[in-house]
Formats: sequence, C-alpha cells, structure tokens
Amino acid sequence: MAHLDFYRSLAVPSDRRILFMVLDGLGGLPHVHTGETELEAAKTPNLDRLAARGELGLSTPILPGVTPGSGPAHIGLFGYDPVEHQVGRGVLAALGVGADLRPGDVAARINFCSLNAEGQVTDRRAGRIGDEIGAPLAERLDAMPDPAGVEMRVRHVKQYRACVILRGAGLEGDIADTDPLVTGVPPLAPVAQSEGSERAAALVADFVTRAADALDDQGAANGVLLRGFDGYSPLPTMGELYGLTAAAVAAYPMYLGVARLAGMAAHPVKDEPDAMVEQVKSLDGADFVFLHYKSTDSKGEDGDFDAKVAEVEKADGVIGRLVEDFDVVMVTGDHSTPSRMSAHSWHPVPLLIAGPDARSQNHPGFGERECVGGSLGHVSASDVLPLVLAHAGRLRKFGA
Amino acid sequence: MAHLDFYRSLAVPSDRRILFMVLDGLGGLPHVHTGETELEAAKTPNLDRLAARGELGLSTPILPGVTPGSGPAHIGLFGYDPVEHQVGRGVLAALGVGADLRPGDVAARINFCSLNAEGQVTDRRAGRIGDEIGAPLAERLDAMPDPAGVEMRVRHVKQYRACVILRGAGLEGDIADTDPLVTGVPPLAPVAQSEGSERAAALVADFVTRAADALDDQGAANGVLLRGFDGYSPLPTMGELYGLTAAAVAAYPMYLGVARLAGMAAHPVKDEPDAMVEQVKSLDGADFVFLHYKSTDSKGEDGDFDAKVAEVEKADGVIGRLVEDFDVVMVTGDHSTPSRMSAHSWHPVPLLIAGPDARSQNHPGFGERECVGGSLGHVSASDVLPLVLAHAGRLRKFGA
Repeated sequence: MAHLDFYRSLAVPSDRRILFMVLDGLGGLPHVHTGETELEAAKTPNLDRLAARGELGLSTPILPGVTPGSGPAHIGLFGYDPVEHQVGRGVLAALGVGADLRPGDVAARINFCSLNAEGQVTDRRAGRIGDEIGAPLAERLDAMPDPAGVEMRVRHVKQYRACVILRGAGLEGDIADTDPLVTGVPPLAPVAQSEGSERAAALVADFVTRAADALDDQGAANGVLLRGFDGYSPLPTMGELYGLTAAAVAAYPMYLGVARLAGMAAHPVKDEPDAMVEQVKSLDGADFVFLHYKSTDSKGEDGDFDAKVAEVEKADGVIGRLVEDFDVVMVTGDHSTPSRMSAHSWHPVPLLIAGPDARSQNHPGFGERECVGGSLGHVSASDVLPLVLAHAGRLRKFGA
Repeated sequence: MAHLDFYRSLAVPSDRRILFMVLDGLGGLPHVHTGETELEAAKTPNLDRLAARGELGLSTPILPGVTPGSGPAHIGLFGYDPVEHQVGRGVLAALGVGADLRPGDVAARINFCSLNAEGQVTDRRAGRIGDEIGAPLAERLDAMPDPAGVEMRVRHVKQYRACVILRGAGLEGDIADTDPLVTGVPPLAPVAQSEGSERAAALVADFVTRAADALDDQGAANGVLLRGFDGYSPLPTMGELYGLTAAAVAAYPMYLGVARLAGMAAHPVKDEPDAMVEQVKSLDGADFVFLHYKSTDSKGEDGDFDAKVAEVEKADGVIGRLVEDFDVVMVTGDHSTPSRMSAHSWHPVPLLIAGPDARSQNHPGFGERECVGGSLGHVSASDVLPLVLAHAGRLRKFGA
C-alpha cells in the first residue's frame, strides 16, 4: 500500500480523458512458419497510428515468469499489487453481477451440477443449462430461509453459474472448494482452512444440503458445487486514490467485478464492436474509461492463430472509432495468450500509451518486437496506471 | 536503507576518479517539426565520443510517472531512496549556504516581503531586493536576542531569500508555510501539523512578530514569509557508505545543500563554463566530483527549445575539457524538462557511463532514442551511483 499512498499524495485533477483499453490475452508468440505474432500479423491501421505518435513498452503482469488469471492480471493493471491483494473468484463473481457486497461478507461461486442417486457428481455443469433455467434456480436458492443471525443471498451469474454471499458477524472465507473437479465422486465437504472460517464452513455445509433438497425436483441441475470462497475487503478506489470518475465497459461479469473493486461504475455491454463503441461514447461524464475486449483471449485459448488475428483487427476498428474522444489512449493486454500455447502465459504484454506528452519514436506499428525497443521500457503492470495518470496530467510534482 | 547497507558492505577503495555530471532537466521531447529532442538536436562532439565508448540507458528519477522537484531527484541520483528520505526545502537551503546544521535542528526558508499598513502582503519578494540589501537584513534578524533555551540563526541565501534555523530540545518541523502564495492577504500563521511541532510553531510565530518589528524601518522588505519547514536528520554520507572523498561544484545553493546532505565538500562556482572547469580541475584531492549544470533546466522551463539546445552544447564543451581528468564519466539529468512542456516531467532521463570497463556499443551519439536501446537499460535513478561505483572498481565481489 505504500506505493498507492505515495501516488495518492500526488494526485491532481485534469481535463484529459483516458481510454484504458485491455485486449484480453493480447500477447502472443511468433507463428512457427511466418515468424510473426498474432498482433504483428494483424492489419491494425489505428494501432499503428497510435504507435507512431505514442510510446511503446512491455508490461509484466505479476512478476517475471508468472502466468496470471484474468482477476489478478486486471488488479495489477488497475495499479494494485496483485500479490498483496489476492481477491477470490467468489468476490469477483458477486461484484460482477452487481451484488450488494459489504466488508466482511463471504462469497463463493456456484456451479449447478448433476448428482446421481448415490450423490456422485455426473456433470459438473448440469448439462450446461442456459440462463432460462439457471436464473430461476438461483432465485429458488435465494428464497430459502436464512439461518439465524445470517443472511445468505444467491445471485445468478450466467447459464449454470451463480454465486452465494454470506453476511453475518464473525464469518471468514478461508474454506476449501466443494467442486471435486472430476465426475464419479461426491462433492467435497466445505472444509474450514482456518479456525476463523469454521462458522462460515458449517453454514455452507448446511446450505449445500438445503440446496440439494430445494433442487430435488430438477433433473440435470439437482446439486451445487462451490468454489472460490473469499471474504470481501474493499480496495481503495480509483476515485479515492486519484479523484478519477472511472467507468468500465465489459461483456463478461468477472471484468465488471474487478472494475467495481477498483471503484468503477460498471456498464455491461454486448460482446460486439458496435455496442462497445456506442456504450463508451455514451460515457462522456467519465474521465477514465476501461474497455475490456474478451475475444482475443478466447481465440488464443482455442489455439486459433488466424481467429485471434481477426479479433485483434476487430478491436483495432473499435479503437479507431474511439480515439478522437480521448486525450490519452492506453492499449495493452492483461496477459499473453499465445495461440501456439492455447493458454495464458507469463510473457510480457505489448503496451502502448499515446497522448500529447508522449516521447514518440515513430514506431512503424504495434507488435511484441517493436515494443521491446520502446521508450516505456519493460514495466510492471502495476506501473501502467501511474504512467497513464502522468500522461493525463494527473500527478503533480513531487518536492520542489 | 537495506540497499545502502548492502552496498556499503561491498565498498572498497580505488584509484579511479569519477566525474558525476548532472545536466539539470536534461531529458526532453521531440520537437513537433523536426522530431528531434533538445539533446538529439544539439551538436555534442564530446558526449558523442563518450557515447561511442561508453554505455547508455534511461534513468527513472523517482517512480514511473512521477515528476520530481530537483531536491528529491538529486537525492535519488546520490543513491538514496527519495521517497523514504524526504528532505524539506528549509533544510536544503540551510545546507546550501553552509549553515551549521545539527540533528534535530528545524530549518525553514525565508522570503523578505512587503507588508502594507493593514499587515497584508503586497509583494512576496520585497521588490526582488538584491544581495546588498538582503544580506544585512538577514544579519539584523540573526542578531535579534534568542528566546530562552533556544538558538535561532538566520542566514542569507540570495537576493530576497534567507533561511532560519531553530536549535533546542524537543523541536519538530511539521509546521505549515506562512507564505500565502498570493498578495492582498496577511501572512498565514505557522500552524503546527503535529503535537510535537507545537513548541517550534510558537517560537516561529514569535520570530515573525519580532522580525516585523526589527524590519519596521525598511520600505520594501518589512516582513518575512516562511516555508519549507523541516527537521534535520542526516543521511549516511558517501564517505561513510563508500569511502568516497566527494566534492560538489554548483552555482546554486540548493544543489550544494543536497550535496552536503550526501557528505560532499561543497564548492560554489559562478554559473559559467570557464569557472566550472577551473573549479573542477582544482579538486584533484577528490575522487568523486559532482558537477551541476543548471541552465539546461532553466531554458527548458522557459519553453525555449533552441536555448536549451545551446546550453546542452555549452555543457558538452565543459565535459570535453574535463574528460581527461577522470577515469569514469557519468552524464545524466536529475529529471526531464522538455521545452515543449515548459516544466519538469516524469519522462526517463538519458544516462551515459563511460569508463575502462564499459560494455560499449559504438553508439553514434547521446540522445533519448539512442538511450532506449542502451546496454544499461531502464534503471532507477538510485541505481546510477552503484553502477558508477562498479565502473570505478569500488564494489568488491559479493560472496565467493
């Protein structure tokens, strides 16, 4: 927190608007035949123009060699130390659906699942039921009577996914997942991993039993698996730290969750370029807009080089339609997802910052190798936000 | 301090002499028409020769995105953590004029100012009185009787500027400035910002009243404004840490002050190339000479690109006349002052180290973009001194 307090002490207002665009899983690896990465192969006229007048560099998401999930990767990009501030997926899921979450609440993700007569898991995703089934089931669990002195709220997330929030005195979230990760075995018990979590673990065990009763008449979705338990302790927001009026535009709840954690107003959007552009353009009251573009990561995870190239090109079109609305434009990924690996990786991520005070180098384009020689150098993801704030004139001089 | 103790444990003597040359505000931004920075545009045959045989890199003064004042920027270059060691301007001013300063003393800057009959400030700089008026007025304040148990010394700095030092048991320097920063209002009260500072604040309030009485017969300079209060806590010196016999050559007291803080012998000099060269050449007993060149920053702050170029060229001439007297030559800035911004900035600063053990890359010259690809990489300002010590053979092997 020492760094945050230091930067907070320097924060000043500014009229410059910031676009903070994250292309999920942006970084890649050279194609074995062409030697070009996805970003290098993509035709990106808008990013190329920004690269020519802006500054390039590489961002290390967590620490050298560490492959991040999207949660900690975004927490880093938003300027927090992602190792110090580890936030459970349950909390991010609850924040992602806009649930009322208060300090001390314990949250977990829920999967509806299929159980056989012996109580063994036969499908960890209940046949991938859709929203039309999942949503009313979540409401049914939410309507179950609360145990004495505790509130338990259930919120639907998407399809077979939901989340549960426990509120009451003396609850802690250090509880093992009940999802066995394989089929043919019963769900695991929610074992407390610390003494302070025993009360919450007992409440969860009771909840799992009552949920199975409440879902008894359901075919596929007759049980629940819980994971990602965590207690909620709020972070200082971007408003508190830097005086930013920050907004987030994202199609997936998890990213809205981590944005809410940073104090951004969350704006869900269809996963589609026109909708994204329209939504961002409607936010003229925000001086900081985080725009999350998911499909670059999805195609990388699919191992589909060409499809990832196509998504980078689509994202380039989105950027081109937004550039004129902002004074400072930052483009990076939360991590690399090389299609050659079909997975997230630890490789540093291309980083671009364009604004009126950029020390431009006339880069011919935006790509991994061009970024190696960029004037931003190799930075930690948590340095990206301070650099962007500097370009926006939002950090005053330190000392005289 | 952990880093300092570690480096201290490795320090060994060496015959190699070090020139540590700081061109204030050296870093710049590309000219909008030519695309060249001030340093890139300047004709610098001596720096070019050093760049060819030396190593280049970029130095981040404080932390990414942070624009420093010259005080903390120099503290960083001298190897200390500038966020951990925040030193008030009052202490630097007192050190700058060579005042006797002891641990626990509280120091502040003084401006002589003009007050009207209502006690309102009409000129915060007393009509910019010269040394011939300011010096005797400072002596007059110094001669006022001390309060019981406390010594209060006043030292002239330059023109309308002076400083005051309070010495006594139980004094702390967490006191608000009395300078209102505008005219037409009375000076502010010296409000204690912490309980421990209340005694010193009361002494200062009394001092301000007595000073106005003592200056009553003065026309323009009939009052004082105080700012930059701080208690003095000495840093471990370069002598203690590394066994260096270090000397500083600078035209402005502030830079001599921060050099004294690091334990250097301070040598004031005329702000003029010949005088600087002569002064440095006279210091053959020093194995480390810090030479401060101010005008690069001043012209940058003026927003005068061509004048900053001319100052870089003048500084290049100074370096050319000194190179043969030193084994290791380091050239950098304390921060960037792009003339395009007419202000200090956060941009990393060009860095050059030349010596017998340089991993040279035959760089064609010394400039921001050349430095991006330099073998020193992007370093923190507080890493510059250890690198220089290494080039001078002053750090022994760590472990066997």
